[in-house]
Amino acid sequence: MAQPSQILLAHGSGGRLMHDLIHELFQHHFSNDILDELTDSAVISKLPDGDYDICFTTDSYVVNPLFFPGGDIGKLAVCGTVNDLAVVGAQPLYISCGFIIEEGLDYDTLAKIVESMAEVAKREGIKIVTGDTKVVEKRSADKLFINTSGIGLKPKQLQLGTQYVRPGDKVIINGTIGEHELAILLARGEFEFEARIQTDCAALTGLIQDVLKVTDKVKFMRDPTRGGLATTLNELVSGMGFGILIHETRIPVRDEVRAICEILGYDPLYLANEGKVVIVVAQEAAEPVLQVMREHPLGKDSQIIGEVIDEPKGKVILRTEIGGHRIIDMLTGVQLPRIC
Amino acid sequence: MAQPSQILLAHGSGGRLMHDLIHELFQHHFSNDILDELTDSAVISKLPDGDYDICFTTDSYVVNPLFFPGGDIGKLAVCGTVNDLAVVGAQPLYISCGFIIEEGLDYDTLAKIVESMAEVAKREGIKIVTGDTKVVEKRSADKLFINTSGIGLKPKQLQLGTQYVRPGDKVIINGTIGEHELAILLARGEFEFEARIQTDCAALTGLIQDVLKVTDKVKFMRDPTRGGLATTLNELVSGMGFGILIHETRIPVRDEVRAICEILGYDPLYLANEGKVVIVVAQEAAEPVLQVMREHPLGKDSQIIGEVIDEPKGKVILRTEIGGHRIIDMLTGVQLPRIC
Repeated sequence: MAQPSQILLAHGSGGRLMHDLIHELFQHHFSNDILDELTDSAVISKLPDGDYDICFTTDSYVVNPLFFPGGDIGKLAVCGTVNDLAVVGAQPLYISCGFIIEEGLDYDTLAKIVESMAEVAKREGIKIVTGDTKVVEKRSADKLFINTSGIGLKPKQLQLGTQYVRPGDKVIINGTIGEHELAILLARGEFEFEARIQTDCAALTGLIQDVLKVTDKVKFMRDPTRGGLATTLNELVSGMGFGILIHETRIPVRDEVRAICEILGYDPLYLANEGKVVIVVAQEAAEPVLQVMREHPLGKDSQIIGEVIDEPKGKVILRTEIGGHRIIDMLTGVQLPRIC
Repeated sequence: MAQPSQILLAHGSGGRLMHDLIHELFQHHFSNDILDELTDSAVISKLPDGDYDICFTTDSYVVNPLFFPGGDIGKLAVCGTVNDLAVVGAQPLYISCGFIIEEGLDYDTLAKIVESMAEVAKREGIKIVTGDTKVVEKRSADKLFINTSGIGLKPKQLQLGTQYVRPGDKVIINGTIGEHELAILLARGEFEFEARIQTDCAALTGLIQDVLKVTDKVKFMRDPTRGGLATTLNELVSGMGFGILIHETRIPVRDEVRAICEILGYDPLYLANEGKVVIVVAQEAAEPVLQVMREHPLGKDSQIIGEVIDEPKGKVILRTEIGGHRIIDMLTGVQLPRIC
């Protein structure tokens, strides 16, 4: 059946139009052996041999605008959930997607986003195995929201967590910060800058798996998304018997990002990233890890940005360019809404 | 930290306020060993021994209004996802929840819904193990949307699917149809009826597991939600080498539902249910299954409503009260939006 050029309420009502949408768009692009069964739950029977934990995560994506330099909500929705699995050390395998669509969304817009999701999933070797579509009236949602939940497998012997972090451990990041949030901000067209900053949105599984292959001394990983690097480091030290010292001069920030932040009064430390990971490793593993990260396309600007310290406990300290020290707190209040 | 009486954009920005919300509301009510780790992905290591398939499902809930007789969006969000797992024969175990909140939602409203989710999860022995919170600006969403994804385990030897269905098999439903959708419609206050119809929203795992204990002759199960019983039966026969004959006089419909449908011009066959399951079983198992279903609180009005027939293939035929026959098609167009 030919699809109307816009999404109608009837696309969400469970009837013929929804079934056609599922077959002609979603199944067409996402097709795989598990999804194609179209059962109420995906039935996954092919798990690899070995001793694994199942990892499970969810994220809703409400980014505005839907398309921005370097990505779109679909790419973000797959990469973001993949990264939440990757940073706990899992191999992401299966993803669900739930669409909440505002009545009147162009069919072609939805199709482009679905293609984008399919492309990332294919490249990352991930199967989209189950989904759901809801359509709400005009002005009951803003164009499109996507939830992706993901399942991955982590070898049981891989133990990560703040409880393994010790003073002396090194803090590494795989590149420059702040690009995703600024890319979204500029894509909204509220400012006129020549700079065309692209999101750093990327799936980090390959980079992270490379790291896990060279060492068993990784203690903790997290992707600094909403709230930025500052918030992620604060989450890491919160309530723990150690602090973190980071060095302003070692934190990779692109010149354009720095310049725009200065004009707009933003701090890159609090800007969201979508292709970055903070890795805490034992001191002796820091250099080999840095080297393997720099050999990966997503890690060529990797830096050791700081270390875990004894005192002050539970605090993140920034050693500034001119040699001062200041406490970096978690983000309070709102910086930008709907960046992811 | 004391929470503001309304949800602010800052509750979604990744900073302090979001962390407090997660700890004071979500973790407070949902607390369990896996969730409490608060890692980027839930790490699930305690799977039972035995030979199981992993089942995985997702659903977004956008029901309007948030509260209605017999339930609310939180109860619906847990029961709905539990049921999608239960009907493939799985024991639901773990659930994720993703909240998309409109700025300005009353904190107490959110808290009530979270309590409702926690209550169902507890009663059903399910752990809410991972979550996500997004807040969008006023008028970018309507109050609250919830996505729940779920993981369950199904014994590998349990094989269900349309490919096992054969002419002669019986079609059973566990009770009266149409209540959920009418309850939502009436709760919107657009009509003035004395009748106070309650949603049938319920988690079906117990009932379904009781059935699976008495027979290995179950062929197929599905919960007739959006599009109602008519659509579910059409999905079952679509493209298959058999049809289904159902008998109007055997389909359980409450008198109030029938009366309101007559006034408003709705057909109960197309109304959504949230606590019903259609079970197809081999003829010889129909009576024992019916009996065990009727012993369960959610199945006391169970009926054998029809049977699988040779011809016409791919069609659902209704034998009407007066003895005529008509083809029952899938829902086309929209009946009511935002019922789930």
